[in-house]
Amino acid sequence: MSQTNYLLVYNMFSLGIASMLFTTIFLIVARERVLPRYRMAVLVSATVTGIAAYHYFRMFDSFNHVFGPDAIEGAVYNVGYRYVDWFLTVPLLLVETVAVLAIARAAQSALLVRLVPAAAAMIALGYPGDAGLDIGGVSAPVWGLLSTIPFLYILYILFVELGKSLGKQSKQVQRRIKELRLLLLATWGVYPLAFIANMNSTGFEEQGFVLRETGYTIADILAKCLFGLMIFSIARMKSAEDDKSFAASEYKGK
Amino acid sequence: MSQTNYLLVYNMFSLGIASMLFTTIFLIVARERVLPRYRMAVLVSATVTGIAAYHYFRMFDSFNHVFGPDAIEGAVYNVGYRYVDWFLTVPLLLVETVAVLAIARAAQSALLVRLVPAAAAMIALGYPGDAGLDIGGVSAPVWGLLSTIPFLYILYILFVELGKSLGKQSKQVQRRIKELRLLLLATWGVYPLAFIANMNSTGFEEQGFVLRETGYTIADILAKCLFGLMIFSIARMKSAEDDKSFAASEYKGK
Repeated sequence: MSQTNYLLVYNMFSLGIASMLFTTIFLIVARERVLPRYRMAVLVSATVTGIAAYHYFRMFDSFNHVFGPDAIEGAVYNVGYRYVDWFLTVPLLLVETVAVLAIARAAQSALLVRLVPAAAAMIALGYPGDAGLDIGGVSAPVWGLLSTIPFLYILYILFVELGKSLGKQSKQVQRRIKELRLLLLATWGVYPLAFIANMNSTGFEEQGFVLRETGYTIADILAKCLFGLMIFSIARMKSAEDDKSFAASEYKGK
Repeated sequence: MSQTNYLLVYNMFSLGIASMLFTTIFLIVARERVLPRYRMAVLVSATVTGIAAYHYFRMFDSFNHVFGPDAIEGAVYNVGYRYVDWFLTVPLLLVETVAVLAIARAAQSALLVRLVPAAAAMIALGYPGDAGLDIGGVSAPVWGLLSTIPFLYILYILFVELGKSLGKQSKQVQRRIKELRLLLLATWGVYPLAFIANMNSTGFEEQGFVLRETGYTIADILAKCLFGLMIFSIARMKSAEDDKSFAASEYKGK
């Protein structure tokens, strides 16, 4: 791997570690800055970035064992870390999204029993294609396509079903939740592009690898750290709306 | 070991670490989301997953020292980590189950003085069979059988004795506790199967090892992380039932 490419991926992984780790610590401590009823959403956000921080430490090491100056003979870059990470964190991202709405418990459950299995299926179907596993001769594009079905279903739930419960939120919160959904759509859209970049890289393996790892890392930081901070900001906005004395203790004047 | 098998077990151990570690952190912080009388149950759940996180870090390293690209000459995979882990965590899993019921202290003690020694005996009797130790010429199937006796006794206590105290719980909590018991039965049932898979693997040592480690890991994640989160969910349900003002601060509307 060229020195430029090596340093690019190396620094991206390190940026990933720093972003995930300190978003986690910030959110755990900052949970007290929202009302108790929004703290589960903030805590789940912290759990997502915490799990990702662990995996970025591992990916950083795995990358260095293969491409670093002290590479270990026979080491293979383990793309499994990303998929194990997503298998745990993507369902949790949907949990935090629903939790911050603080809608009735029955309505929450109705959304989650559909979102969580769809998210798990989306990740599980993507892995064999990205890792180049041979399972019954199914090719990478087919795995990619299969994985897209639950993705579209999730979008349907978020944009159509969840939209129905937005009417009860204040104008300000509604706008922020719509931004949140757009962030999710924009960042989750990067993953299939990075998947395709790697898939079509025959003959340009190094370029495909660099594009994929860089793309996944940027998308991860936006989809987990920025997303988690937006969840926190919605929680804070709703806390101030729910309780005037809380608002007075948190903000000076109007 | 084949590359596919190596990566499978490697990623399972890493999944084990991530699941155990972040369930622990989540439960420690989230204990505030239940009434004080249920916090012991949540804290014991966090202790269980914390002890398991430590052992998964160790097993991950032990596995790599034997099968990894930088394997150490003469290193042997240490199955003892699992049994030390279970010796500590399985009795604690029964403690958290009884604790979350919040029944009278005398009734709790009566259950625990029977459950805890039985759990310890079950693990201690399983180890010599799984590790292939030669103690007085007793064979692995016999150790497995001896270990089954306390297991059946635990099931008797949980399904018959504990069932008697369920009448005082709300319908919703009763249903959740029955799910908890079924999860325990289903996941604990995997351990003897993995034990037998390994026992019968003469000639297929690698396959037996992979089946056993994969089976134990999946069972552990369900029996500790999912179990602990269900304990938390029961604690939260009971907190809301016990105290209306707590419920109002934790949930918006109905």
